[in-house]
Amino acid sequence: MQQYMDIIWVFLASVLVFFMQAGFAMVETGFTRAKNAGNIIMKNFVDFMIGSILFFCFGFGIMFGPDWMGLIGTAGFFNPENLTNVSAFEAVTPELFIFFQTVFAATAATIVSGAVAGRTKFSVYCLISAFVSLIIYPVVGHWVWGGGFLGSMGFIDFAGSTVVHSVGGWTALVGAIMVGPRIGKYNKDGKANAIPGHSLTLGALGVFILWFAWFGFNAGSTLTVNLDIGHIAMTTNLAAAAGGLTVMFLTWIRYQKPDISMTLNGVLGGLVAITAGCLVVTLWGAILIGIIAGVVITFGIPFIDQKLRIDDPVGAIGVHCFCGVTGTLLVGLFANYLPGTEDAILGLFYGGGLAVLGVQAIGVLSVAAWTVSVAFILFFILKKTMGLRVDKIVEIEGLDVHEHGIEAYSDFVSRMN
Amino acid sequence: MQQYMDIIWVFLASVLVFFMQAGFAMVETGFTRAKNAGNIIMKNFVDFMIGSILFFCFGFGIMFGPDWMGLIGTAGFFNPENLTNVSAFEAVTPELFIFFQTVFAATAATIVSGAVAGRTKFSVYCLISAFVSLIIYPVVGHWVWGGGFLGSMGFIDFAGSTVVHSVGGWTALVGAIMVGPRIGKYNKDGKANAIPGHSLTLGALGVFILWFAWFGFNAGSTLTVNLDIGHIAMTTNLAAAAGGLTVMFLTWIRYQKPDISMTLNGVLGGLVAITAGCLVVTLWGAILIGIIAGVVITFGIPFIDQKLRIDDPVGAIGVHCFCGVTGTLLVGLFANYLPGTEDAILGLFYGGGLAVLGVQAIGVLSVAAWTVSVAFILFFILKKTMGLRVDKIVEIEGLDVHEHGIEAYSDFVSRMN
Amino acid sequence: MQQYMDIIWVFLASVLVFFMQAGFAMVETGFTRAKNAGNIIMKNFVDFMIGSILFFCFGFGIMFGPDWMGLIGTAGFFNPENLTNVSAFEAVTPELFIFFQTVFAATAATIVSGAVAGRTKFSVYCLISAFVSLIIYPVVGHWVWGGGFLGSMGFIDFAGSTVVHSVGGWTALVGAIMVGPRIGKYNKDGKANAIPGHSLTLGALGVFILWFAWFGFNAGSTLTVNLDIGHIAMTTNLAAAAGGLTVMFLTWIRYQKPDISMTLNGVLGGLVAITAGCLVVTLWGAILIGIIAGVVITFGIPFIDQKLRIDDPVGAIGVHCFCGVTGTLLVGLFANYLPGTEDAILGLFYGGGLAVLGVQAIGVLSVAAWTVSVAFILFFILKKTMGLRVDKIVEIEGLDVHEHGIEAYSDFVSRMN
Repeated sequence: MQQYMDIIWVFLASVLVFFMQAGFAMVETGFTRAKNAGNIIMKNFVDFMIGSILFFCFGFGIMFGPDWMGLIGTAGFFNPENLTNVSAFEAVTPELFIFFQTVFAATAATIVSGAVAGRTKFSVYCLISAFVSLIIYPVVGHWVWGGGFLGSMGFIDFAGSTVVHSVGGWTALVGAIMVGPRIGKYNKDGKANAIPGHSLTLGALGVFILWFAWFGFNAGSTLTVNLDIGHIAMTTNLAAAAGGLTVMFLTWIRYQKPDISMTLNGVLGGLVAITAGCLVVTLWGAILIGIIAGVVITFGIPFIDQKLRIDDPVGAIGVHCFCGVTGTLLVGLFANYLPGTEDAILGLFYGGGLAVLGVQAIGVLSVAAWTVSVAFILFFILKKTMGLRVDKIVEIEGLDVHEHGIEAYSDFVSRMN
Repeated sequence: MQQYMDIIWVFLASVLVFFMQAGFAMVETGFTRAKNAGNIIMKNFVDFMIGSILFFCFGFGIMFGPDWMGLIGTAGFFNPENLTNVSAFEAVTPELFIFFQTVFAATAATIVSGAVAGRTKFSVYCLISAFVSLIIYPVVGHWVWGGGFLGSMGFIDFAGSTVVHSVGGWTALVGAIMVGPRIGKYNKDGKANAIPGHSLTLGALGVFILWFAWFGFNAGSTLTVNLDIGHIAMTTNLAAAAGGLTVMFLTWIRYQKPDISMTLNGVLGGLVAITAGCLVVTLWGAILIGIIAGVVITFGIPFIDQKLRIDDPVGAIGVHCFCGVTGTLLVGLFANYLPGTEDAILGLFYGGGLAVLGVQAIGVLSVAAWTVSVAFILFFILKKTMGLRVDKIVEIEGLDVHEHGIEAYSDFVSRMN
Repeated sequence: MQQYMDIIWVFLASVLVFFMQAGFAMVETGFTRAKNAGNIIMKNFVDFMIGSILFFCFGFGIMFGPDWMGLIGTAGFFNPENLTNVSAFEAVTPELFIFFQTVFAATAATIVSGAVAGRTKFSVYCLISAFVSLIIYPVVGHWVWGGGFLGSMGFIDFAGSTVVHSVGGWTALVGAIMVGPRIGKYNKDGKANAIPGHSLTLGALGVFILWFAWFGFNAGSTLTVNLDIGHIAMTTNLAAAAGGLTVMFLTWIRYQKPDISMTLNGVLGGLVAITAGCLVVTLWGAILIGIIAGVVITFGIPFIDQKLRIDDPVGAIGVHCFCGVTGTLLVGLFANYLPGTEDAILGLFYGGGLAVLGVQAIGVLSVAAWTVSVAFILFFILKKTMGLRVDKIVEIEGLDVHEHGIEAYSDFVSRMN
């Protein structure tokens, strides 16, 4: 009976997480230019299509195959359903667990496309996306969830602030730096120009879809029906609401106008930040984590854009990297999980000292080091061989026409440039 | 076991109801002007963000806290999960029940934004939205679902035709009157001009999302897995289909052309109307309720627009207020619920006399009186202090540019005005 | 307990399948012209609204009523919930099973609208849609799932590659031929002109929605919670991914550019093709079926468009008819289902000989013969009586303005024609 209920539960969570792909696609295309709208959509499909196949063939085995040195899984390639060391296989059948893990893996890959939008070659992007699903993500996944060293140390990343979001976010950071800013983004004097997206409504739809799907992402990470599900839904929702409201009020004060796209990123920042600790923090802890994520978004995104002069068209670095790191570390402060004295996890604010925070920091740094270095090598090799960027004319006239031979909005008159 | 199944069930219903936010956002933005598309999206986010926080801090306690005089709940503020009088807490855990109630509360708030679209100050709207989630909705919720006087009288509003939709609809009515029509809506001679929406496709997407989510709204209101779920799904679906078809055929006859946006409102009207009685009416009763809702929409929306000269850009008053009231009253005619002789609920058409209809009317009137008067006071105070409307130039050039410093569709050439 | 779990399961599957309506609406409108965007949306609503009512009143009884000669059901009209011969009624309650079947029926109807988009009279379309839900689909459904001759022969169409998709696809084929191509589609010399859709982003959103919903469509067809659900989710996902990737790479080779709308149709083709065999093929079988579907799409859609000169604006024939047929036949090759020796289903590649393939071919041909002939008679009668096509001026200026008195995008400047 429990097994059958868990099957419904994991299936429900999986399809919700799958639906994140639609959310990311809408956010990324809505917040970028119409002339590249089809290209970015296509990248989102590539992320999921390539990710599904590669994670099935290799990624799952790297993540959940028998452990080698706490670093990597070593079997289950091409037929992961035959692995015998995965306890979740017994709980919900092998293939349902693989399905659940596949939709998570594809989420990490899809974060990158927004940050390199508008100037990256489609062929290069396909390879980058493949590498995230093939290597970068599964190795981190093994460390934390697959029997690797971080999980063994007690690193807490319940649903993936670090495993999913910071991996996507760090890769996005490396990518945005290596690819360089879009033409016209920065003036000679370094001043940043805003390049508004082509459809706030699609972007907003994407954020609502992501918020909706995130309940499956976080609550589904229980992998079993239990009494924690309501708690996770509430922490997730409160952090998202607090994150969005914080950005809305801060931008209202700072710019005299509540900023729409920043507010939407505030919601996403709150969701990313609560993902690590959604099970182990209190409801008020969740609200505070959301507020902190909102502050990180409000100051972090302009910092990346204007101080670091990294052109991240959709704010993926701020949302997924900054808030992923923040949320993971905040578990060290806000954890207050008391199911029994042995399983208790207490952060600094609840008398648990620095122990949890220390492990969280080790986790964040380990994942950052791995992801940034592998991503750097990958982008570096691709830059030296294929070249990362499209030609200037392609970028100016739009990737849709040049890379795909089509316009996304053939019936509408577009503005210049 | 039942508990775990109910947890899955209520979680599923809750996330579906959450997704209504995306539906409302698309309907409201799609059926209004492009120049205000970002503003209305932002209002939808504000509804849910503010609603989530305030309903958690205050609303839930007002709605479900220990009853005072059948009128209001009196405890559970800031930590509603610690209430001891809520039986649903034992069934599905406190936090899951709070989550479920939160997404319902936010639905009521979000109905208002469409009716006051295109001319209301964003700051004012934030306060209105806050008051709906903080006071107006929770008090009504207490009366009907939280141990208050209407529930005790046997008032039947299974999933919220009155509690959710008419509360949103009455507030929308007061708002649309108090804010006044958009510039250009009415000529000097009182003739109404149609101001078409900017994206029928997004509007239609929104209606499909709402229809999808409504199955969670109505069937989920069982709060438990039982044998009624299929019945509720069928009554919900048949009423929606009948509502839409009725409007389609009536507008076809009346205007020689089947009207698209009216038909979509017919679907919504059918959904709103069946919400009160979805459990207690028969399948053919549901079809008739849908047809009646379709008639109400076909004649009600032009009546509001052209006779009363109330400018409701998306038809929210017709859909949520008129059909919410109609559907609640029709329970008094169509109820035919016979699970056991003691629990039987029979409307006028099934030999139950006028008893049910009388109670339904009392409920409708009580809720109308409360909502209209509080909403009037609220709008009146805001009008005298902050002023409800944006400046003329803001309204003409668009709220997006003036209130948020952005255009929703930067890459497209828009038509004048 | 099993009953209650199955109720959750079938409800979940049903609402996901309902949501396909939103997916089809977005795909069909996104891939066609802006001037007809409202019209096609309206057709999608009509499909579901008329389908819901007619399938309830007649279709369900034809499909699941007591069998007559293996050909048709004969009772249950107007009150299908009172049928006593439907075993699923005991499993999940009559009304939930009717709801589940309703959303499937409406899917078949909605496939047609894309193929006849942009030139078909709305009134005529309403009648066509009604006939699909009333007669064409329920009869086929009876043959395969309702106790008819194909089911008895062992024909395998687990979730409806043939029953749902090929029925929609064959009707679409007949319709597209009978209605004829849009003005400007073919030059005097027979050369085909591409008529691009008006919103690739909405089209892509639709594909993501369909992919999401398809997990309910396929896995939900178990009608019970069991250990196969994960397998079905995986085969469905892998086939979709393989289908899309295959088209992407093949179009990349063939046209030097990866084609976006073709790739999206590749995903849909993979989904349609796996639908028949999702339970009985292996994971690698699913990947191969997806690849084959991708090949069918890559060469089939241009074949229809350029060689047969049938104007199918959204590629519905290639996706639903060609891939539906292909997927059904491939079960005869790839079936490898071994739950017990008695229930084993083995295709040609797994030593089962030609037996399965033979039955699959009979099923495909029977359904094709029935659907094509009835659809032909229907379109022929309508052509001779009402006329299928709108006037030339209506087609050129757009069906939205002439048939519905509205533009879908009133605020935007559109390009000529």
